[in-house]
Amino acid sequence: MMADKGTLYIVSAPSGAGKTSLVAALVEKVPRLRISVSHTTRTMRPGEEDGVNYHFTDRDSFVRQVEQGRFLEHAEVFGNLYGTSADWVKQTLNGGEDVILEIDWQGATQIRKQLPDAVSIFILPPSLDILAQRLRGRETDDDAVIQHRLDGAQDEMSHFAEFDYLIVNDDFQRALYELGAIVEARRLDTPRQQARLASTLEDLLRDRRH
Amino acid sequence: MMADKGTLYIVSAPSGAGKTSLVAALVEKVPRLRISVSHTTRTMRPGEEDGVNYHFTDRDSFVRQVEQGRFLEHAEVFGNLYGTSADWVKQTLNGGEDVILEIDWQGATQIRKQLPDAVSIFILPPSLDILAQRLRGRETDDDAVIQHRLDGAQDEMSHFAEFDYLIVNDDFQRALYELGAIVEARRLDTPRQQARLASTLEDLLRDRRH
Repeated sequence: MMADKGTLYIVSAPSGAGKTSLVAALVEKVPRLRISVSHTTRTMRPGEEDGVNYHFTDRDSFVRQVEQGRFLEHAEVFGNLYGTSADWVKQTLNGGEDVILEIDWQGATQIRKQLPDAVSIFILPPSLDILAQRLRGRETDDDAVIQHRLDGAQDEMSHFAEFDYLIVNDDFQRALYELGAIVEARRLDTPRQQARLASTLEDLLRDRRH
Repeated sequence: MMADKGTLYIVSAPSGAGKTSLVAALVEKVPRLRISVSHTTRTMRPGEEDGVNYHFTDRDSFVRQVEQGRFLEHAEVFGNLYGTSADWVKQTLNGGEDVILEIDWQGATQIRKQLPDAVSIFILPPSLDILAQRLRGRETDDDAVIQHRLDGAQDEMSHFAEFDYLIVNDDFQRALYELGAIVEARRLDTPRQQARLASTLEDLLRDRRH
């Protein structure tokens, strides 16, 4: 076991569950935890920054990397390609840092196949009514659009049991604490601590007489 | 899997690592977590209370319960018997509450055989010198007594790798946070959350159209 390697966390949630805000707050709070920035072929929007929001790339280059097996997962959404490059994630994990990445349940399935030690977390809204309010609150859309979004959210949520952990985002600070506890507990398991605390353990058992 | 059942936490540490204070503070802070009170045949000391510090019992009754298999673990120390009654622990776990119990590595081994789902945590002092200071600080003992205690502490610590989690008690509040994170993360795992959130999950997926 590579116990001194970092852990990859996969976070999925239906739209409106608050996943992006939670992950951003978590990374602010927890040291040695970095967000994976996706690659995309869609055009940059005003206010976006290459390498921050996404790594913006062209379709030919994206497809070539897919063919070379250099994506942990990828998908096409509304004609644009999105994907997680394996290189940065593996380098960061090998350097002993943890990586967190937001993705849908299908991407999570692709990643588990390549990195079975990844820890997956699903974030749920507190109720369907609250989710509907949140989805409605975004813009002034008609009922058909809202219903379409709710259908998509329920499709996503129907996969909750494939994830290792479930968090309900009812109270933001509570949900943030819970996310942090999952990362913290993982770091405390004996194989990882044994690697990290090697010199402390050696000191504690030095000159042992039995 | 009985996912709606509580979890048993076993905490071991060498004398001087601060285990008892940490466990007491944890139980103050975390709801639905209860300390297991040991049975003992030793006589009650001034200030102690039956059922709080220990369940005080006589030797005949203790031995009868051992013969009936009603202890999760037991041991004889300086001519007195100490043990953890299975009845209360199992009742409490079946009622959905978690139980935490302090014990040495040998007791932990006995308990794992009977309750393999128990989660075990080993608490370490930050260094051997600090441990020696703490053991010395307790009373004005001569060097031979201190050395004997250090030997015992090192014997105990040599079993750290048998435990699921390692915590270094350098900063008390930090160690307390870490203990709490282990309990919290365990409660968030999908089988347990699925049992606890059954009605929320049913609501979130109600009237699903696909």
